[in-house]
Amino acid sequence: MLKLFHAWGSCSLASLIALEEAGADYDLAVMDTAAGDQRRPDYLAVNPKGRVPALVTDRGILTETPAILAFIAQSYPQANLAPLGDPFAFARAQAFNSYLCSTVHVAHAHKHRGHRWTDDPMAQAAMTAAVPKNEIACFRLIEAEMLRGPWVLGEAYSVCDGYLFTVGGWLAGDGVDIGQFPKVAAHAERVAARPAVRKVLARRAA
Amino acid sequence: MLKLFHAWGSCSLASLIALEEAGADYDLAVMDTAAGDQRRPDYLAVNPKGRVPALVTDRGILTETPAILAFIAQSYPQANLAPLGDPFAFARAQAFNSYLCSTVHVAHAHKHRGHRWTDDPMAQAAMTAAVPKNEIACFRLIEAEMLRGPWVLGEAYSVCDGYLFTVGGWLAGDGVDIGQFPKVAAHAERVAARPAVRKVLARRAA
Repeated sequence: MLKLFHAWGSCSLASLIALEEAGADYDLAVMDTAAGDQRRPDYLAVNPKGRVPALVTDRGILTETPAILAFIAQSYPQANLAPLGDPFAFARAQAFNSYLCSTVHVAHAHKHRGHRWTDDPMAQAAMTAAVPKNEIACFRLIEAEMLRGPWVLGEAYSVCDGYLFTVGGWLAGDGVDIGQFPKVAAHAERVAARPAVRKVLARRAA
Repeated sequence: MLKLFHAWGSCSLASLIALEEAGADYDLAVMDTAAGDQRRPDYLAVNPKGRVPALVTDRGILTETPAILAFIAQSYPQANLAPLGDPFAFARAQAFNSYLCSTVHVAHAHKHRGHRWTDDPMAQAAMTAAVPKNEIACFRLIEAEMLRGPWVLGEAYSVCDGYLFTVGGWLAGDGVDIGQFPKVAAHAERVAARPAVRKVLARRAA
């Protein structure tokens, strides 16, 4: 059985949503990253990167959100979570997810994780201050160029949608009003209304 | 016909190597990013992100290295550039490429691209200073945990290998001796000796 190592508030929400959308049978291990669970030796044995998500499968462990999302989509093809069998359309989905992980998530990470790139507290503070401006630039591009509507890839929901919902969910806490991106804001409401996502969010509230 | 927008010294080398390995028919548009080619209006019409690579296909334009590599591997299955048809093995490849784009490339980018995350010149200088330490941490993890040998995924060459070769090629210029990672160093020599890679490198030298 699959087991997802997850932390509320982190990007692993995208993988959790994908598992629910797929109708997968899985265990959930909830980590407290504020308490440093991800750096404990037993977790580093699972994922030496010391980050979430990690997905334990019967073949081994997978990390990195875009890879886990592709794995779930390919493993549960009946759930139609990605345009499988069409290399161009599949690559479009991968490109979107890659942008979220390498650019948008990284922009957000400069708020509290500046220590990844410098030990200098003044430099970390300068990075933190620039986060809203950088996130706004990213979401302007998503709003104008990437979100086709009603879903990221167009007419069909995909793993990209739960991932965008996850990353967009960080905006308010970073001082960015999602309302300035009307398509992104409407998309977030659409995702939040899906049964699988409601189930996941109820689990967090419980 | 495919057309790759590429800049020497950038991560687009991974896509160029993959096209050669696939035996693809393609045009190459060489950009001068030092001169700002990637921010010219005609290029922004191709890729509004203002970055390389971008791959023009007859279906539309693809960006983001992991997506382009997956597209090439899936479009030229006879070249065996990824473990297609095995969702777990394919996800392992995607996870490796995702780590390179979201963590290793980002660590490198703090050298000259600190302006992406702050306007403060002092903070940018602090980031630049930390680049070797951060790259060493990344490549220690690659050396210890990710590079199975002889190729990244084990016995078979894949798009991951050209990508690791590309990113590892930045180490010397960043003041990091690749020799401290013996498996990575031997892997780079193995990649450089491949006919497709020799052809690409000769094109740069020409």
